[in-house]
Amino acid sequence: MTTPLNLSSALYLIESVATLAFACSGVVEAARRRLDAVGVVVVAGLAAFGGGTLRDVLLDRRPFFWVTHTELLWAVLLLGIAAMLFMRRRHLEPTERAMLWPDAVGMGLFAASGTQLSLQMGQPALVAVILGMVTAVFGGVLRDIVCNDVPKVFRDHRPYALFAFLGGWVLVLADALGAPPWLGLCAGAAIACTLRLLALWWDWKIPAWSGQG
Amino acid sequence: MTTPLNLSSALYLIESVATLAFACSGVVEAARRRLDAVGVVVVAGLAAFGGGTLRDVLLDRRPFFWVTHTELLWAVLLLGIAAMLFMRRRHLEPTERAMLWPDAVGMGLFAASGTQLSLQMGQPALVAVILGMVTAVFGGVLRDIVCNDVPKVFRDHRPYALFAFLGGWVLVLADALGAPPWLGLCAGAAIACTLRLLALWWDWKIPAWSGQG
Amino acid sequence: MTTPLNLSSALYLIESVATLAFACSGVVEAARRRLDAVGVVVVAGLAAFGGGTLRDVLLDRRPFFWVTHTELLWAVLLLGIAAMLFMRRRHLEPTERAMLWPDAVGMGLFAASGTQLSLQMGQPALVAVILGMVTAVFGGVLRDIVCNDVPKVFRDHRPYALFAFLGGWVLVLADALGAPPWLGLCAGAAIACTLRLLALWWDWKIPAWSGQG
Repeated sequence: MTTPLNLSSALYLIESVATLAFACSGVVEAARRRLDAVGVVVVAGLAAFGGGTLRDVLLDRRPFFWVTHTELLWAVLLLGIAAMLFMRRRHLEPTERAMLWPDAVGMGLFAASGTQLSLQMGQPALVAVILGMVTAVFGGVLRDIVCNDVPKVFRDHRPYALFAFLGGWVLVLADALGAPPWLGLCAGAAIACTLRLLALWWDWKIPAWSGQG
Repeated sequence: MTTPLNLSSALYLIESVATLAFACSGVVEAARRRLDAVGVVVVAGLAAFGGGTLRDVLLDRRPFFWVTHTELLWAVLLLGIAAMLFMRRRHLEPTERAMLWPDAVGMGLFAASGTQLSLQMGQPALVAVILGMVTAVFGGVLRDIVCNDVPKVFRDHRPYALFAFLGGWVLVLADALGAPPWLGLCAGAAIACTLRLLALWWDWKIPAWSGQG
Repeated sequence: MTTPLNLSSALYLIESVATLAFACSGVVEAARRRLDAVGVVVVAGLAAFGGGTLRDVLLDRRPFFWVTHTELLWAVLLLGIAAMLFMRRRHLEPTERAMLWPDAVGMGLFAASGTQLSLQMGQPALVAVILGMVTAVFGGVLRDIVCNDVPKVFRDHRPYALFAFLGGWVLVLADALGAPPWLGLCAGAAIACTLRLLALWWDWKIPAWSGQG
């Protein structure tokens, strides 16, 4: 499985930024719940590495991203400790909004990278898109469960998993049209992130049951 | 690992019916909780594919059932969307009972297929039976957790995991007695389903702690 | 991967004792929640085998500990049934404390064995220590989730995961100093257990957020 330099650099960059974005969302969420120092680091780590790890387990892909790139493990560990020290001193009260922005960025990037990796490993299109969605969503689900919250992906009526799903199909489409993989990757990531950010901004809702508010 | 045609057709049939039965239980449960369209599809998918996927991860078996048979992924996707459209229009109020019947069918079939696949891969009898039970139970556990409910398998005092366990031992026994595998498979599935349906019908209870109601 | 006899016996002993200790914590917790007989066995099994199984899935290590050593599966099954019969007759009311002691022992032993196994499989030090922590913590997390409780590891402000983390670094340090692996293993296990037991005894707390009690 040889991937051109362009694509593998783009993948590394996207996975790293997504990891750090989810780690930030985990730190903010842990701070909102007033977890202790260990809890902040654990929640940041689960949010950052949960989605990619589940994807790699499902794909039977080893070593994990965070085993090849232990620098990311150290980065998340230090981020958690630094944020804890900084936020304790400043008596900051992070809002839910402060956590939704990095979460949206991480979701979009992981949807694209997860789909791309699955396509590279020869998965059928629908399977690749679903694995991209799993990568995008699962870190946040773990973060919310550990914080004793109903996962936002199932509670928030603004579309979330849907945009991860759409972002994945952008890659499949780009691939079918013969576009270079890095282009599909960046397009898918950009579209998933942008749609989610717009949904947060304009408060788009998915149609729900008629009986409901 | 060559399996005779009979057995592999029986396995495909059983896994497909179990998958669709759990998907139905997921759709009903999601409708009861009034999840949005994406939630209905996600819950149906987790219920349908959760148990078999965990089994295959534990057995280190690839590709997954739903990767070889993507038609099942499409079927569950369409089922979720169709149910959503249909139920919204009719203003149906599904009851918990409506969800327990397909759940019982899926449980019994997956208990047998999970045990059979594990035996085929050379696992010891007790391990195979436990993996059958995991296959039977885990989809429903995911469905209930995502719907923010205590998993019925741990809450309902009517036996559930116990029948999956018994159904698995039927296969092991049939195998030890020299019966053809497809016969053990069908007998185990039939016994686990029937016992669960009878337990629902006659409200059988497992003995609980003395202090309890 | 040939391990000297000493080390592999020490590993077998440590994993067995840790498994049984977690099984006991599971039985006590299930009894406190007044689960039925099946629930007691399931909770004991999840607590006993959950951590090691997740570690082996992440390491892609097969067969699982409980597949090679099915005697442990039978032991936990019988333990659950025996405890159920015994406790029902005596009308015992187990306290939370009765469950924290075996939990502390299992945590310490699994932290060491998980780290050792990961190092043997060539993982980098930080990854090995994190996998040791996962082994130590995940069985208890499953036990608490199934009992419909916020996992103690995230709720209890007395350090827990932190000591599993420290215990793992003891092994890495012993390895770097050229000590024989069985010595590092025993030292790491002893230190993690002892620190946790002292933390329970003297009620040590991790610094929390300033706004908090």
